[in-house]
Amino acid sequence: MFTITQTPPSPIQELPLARWTDGMSRSVLRQMLAVVAQPGILSFAGGLPAPEMFPADDYGRALNQVLGADSGALQYGPPFTPLKRHIVELMARRGVDCNEAQIFITTGAQQALDVVTRLLLDPGGEVILEEIVYTGVQQAVSPYQPRILPIDTNLYTGLNVDAVAAYLAQGHRPAFLYAIPEAHNPLGVSMSLAKRQQLVELAATYGLPLIEDDPYGFLRYEGEMLPPLRALDADWVFYLGSFSKILAPALRLGWLVAPAELVPKLTVIKEMEDLESSQLTQRAVAAYLDAGHLPGHLARLCTEYGRRRDAMLAALTRHFPAEARWTHPSNGMFIWVELPEHMDTAALLETAVSHEKVAFIPGHAFALPGYGRRNCLRLNFSNCTPERIEDGIERLGKVIDSI
Amino acid sequence: MFTITQTPPSPIQELPLARWTDGMSRSVLRQMLAVVAQPGILSFAGGLPAPEMFPADDYGRALNQVLGADSGALQYGPPFTPLKRHIVELMARRGVDCNEAQIFITTGAQQALDVVTRLLLDPGGEVILEEIVYTGVQQAVSPYQPRILPIDTNLYTGLNVDAVAAYLAQGHRPAFLYAIPEAHNPLGVSMSLAKRQQLVELAATYGLPLIEDDPYGFLRYEGEMLPPLRALDADWVFYLGSFSKILAPALRLGWLVAPAELVPKLTVIKEMEDLESSQLTQRAVAAYLDAGHLPGHLARLCTEYGRRRDAMLAALTRHFPAEARWTHPSNGMFIWVELPEHMDTAALLETAVSHEKVAFIPGHAFALPGYGRRNCLRLNFSNCTPERIEDGIERLGKVIDSI
Repeated sequence: MFTITQTPPSPIQELPLARWTDGMSRSVLRQMLAVVAQPGILSFAGGLPAPEMFPADDYGRALNQVLGADSGALQYGPPFTPLKRHIVELMARRGVDCNEAQIFITTGAQQALDVVTRLLLDPGGEVILEEIVYTGVQQAVSPYQPRILPIDTNLYTGLNVDAVAAYLAQGHRPAFLYAIPEAHNPLGVSMSLAKRQQLVELAATYGLPLIEDDPYGFLRYEGEMLPPLRALDADWVFYLGSFSKILAPALRLGWLVAPAELVPKLTVIKEMEDLESSQLTQRAVAAYLDAGHLPGHLARLCTEYGRRRDAMLAALTRHFPAEARWTHPSNGMFIWVELPEHMDTAALLETAVSHEKVAFIPGHAFALPGYGRRNCLRLNFSNCTPERIEDGIERLGKVIDSI
Repeated sequence: MFTITQTPPSPIQELPLARWTDGMSRSVLRQMLAVVAQPGILSFAGGLPAPEMFPADDYGRALNQVLGADSGALQYGPPFTPLKRHIVELMARRGVDCNEAQIFITTGAQQALDVVTRLLLDPGGEVILEEIVYTGVQQAVSPYQPRILPIDTNLYTGLNVDAVAAYLAQGHRPAFLYAIPEAHNPLGVSMSLAKRQQLVELAATYGLPLIEDDPYGFLRYEGEMLPPLRALDADWVFYLGSFSKILAPALRLGWLVAPAELVPKLTVIKEMEDLESSQLTQRAVAAYLDAGHLPGHLARLCTEYGRRRDAMLAALTRHFPAEARWTHPSNGMFIWVELPEHMDTAALLETAVSHEKVAFIPGHAFALPGYGRRNCLRLNFSNCTPERIEDGIERLGKVIDSI
């Protein structure tokens, strides 16, 4: 059921594709998401925000306002400066001091990642990635067939900075290291302050570019905010921000905070990818932010997602086996669960979907090839109400008990 | 004034960028567009649609409808099938017989071009390009540092198919040939039917993928529609379509018609670039099309753009020197002008902007490195009223007469 589908033989088999596409397979994650997106499935699988929390009315008003105000809203145009100003303010809320010249607007944070990868990575180059990490970065580097230097991740303190130091001391000079310091996807862990400081020091000492992916930084449910890497270093950190999780994914709007000197090259790369991001979306989001809606919206999101996280943590305690362990995320959308060693979460998923109509993502979907264990899973808590979370985790606990 | 700006020295000069970025320069075209986008300039420079023709009200209603109907409109989601159905119908209006499985939705046609390039082109591979051609394709291939096989273009019949045949006969097997058979940008010429047939036969015989860029195919002002390459061959043609010119650029919505067997690989490439195109935009455009607005809108666009083309052709006859020649486009947005040999249109532009506040794009902005002549220019006729066109061409004629 969850095997990777093979591309059927093509009638144009003679058509010579670029060599890197030979080994290409669709992200296991995206394939699984398609499989579990059946009606009636209670899904903890996706990284989906809660649709009932989307600011549809306020954003609709913002759209109407900009469509009515100016025909430029539907035209080609340069990056929208008032939006950049808002992003500078948002970054200040994250403790990052930057200016408009360092803000580069993108069609979602995935584009920011792809554009920076194109800027930094040569074919066959080296990159440092965690063994378990967001699949989008694994996809972004794949055309370059890079040598991946893997590092492990501690579930309490984040990626192994000593392993990074060891690679650098051995003489490796990777094109970049990719990190999700806040609310790691899929692990749910946030990096300790000591590790953040150690990492940016290494970056400056050895000249290691850091790509900091921060889609969840504004979604915090407990504890004090730690500074993003970009707040600790402005020269070596490429910060990726996104409106997908704090407003809505369908905006396809994100940003990069990068050294201003690199913006001309980033602009050329973005132009080759999609010319520019939508003027309408840029202006409507700016109008939404102008209206002052965001702080209240973020507060409501944090309250609601915090309730959902708490519900899931409580339900896990009640319904999962005593030998299971899981992360306790202070923010973000995900909890990472390690079941007893002998369990295989791919098999578990099949039973969970067919018998109990509950879905999650097996942990190995996020593993570098050859890494990851079979007994882990990722649970999303943002997309279901506390009641459905309690129900679904109870059903999942039943399936686990039955095997 | 129009020299290419150099990137200033970077404080992070040690930062090692990917090698292909060394020779990168911003598209001369995009730089010029920025320069001439000053208030008070009467511009024939951009490839901008007429903003007063944008269907802002109807599209606004479509947005409100989908925002009100379904919270899924702001969520992540798979390509929107009803939009694919509409695109199949649109393609039928272009004489192309295809099905939903062959439609691949993209964030504008530039993304379609970038995705297909990533699919087909290896680093250091070969591509066939016209000596004078849309700069977006020159940008899309640049990361691969390809060997470009140049071909010339006849201003009455389109690209030199005999030159293509010669390359293939010599044993070249390029990754693709890029063509704009209908209303070439910047030349304004459409390929003759005989050449279209000859080209697709070559493609099938030698296994040459053809990328057919068709942003202007729906904008026709005279004569009979000729079949797109994709109507003549379904195996070797990758057809790029766009809503930018027929609805609005700020939608950032386009499509690819490709062999269905390649859609899984295209999907992986698109995911690495921007995950997916906006659900909101896909649904709103589908709702706009559901409402049946497009045929009337296209008819109005063709009438108005036809008037503007006629106004520019008449003004050129009145105000440009007798030795000048220009193309007579049956559709699209551009007229290509060749001035007497001794004239330099880059110098002309400086005078035209400073003395007469009129702008255009010098032809060499579209030339492959080492190609193109100094005495050509591209004029856009879609973005100005007939009255402004008459005024601007008269002023431009004055500047030409004065040098």
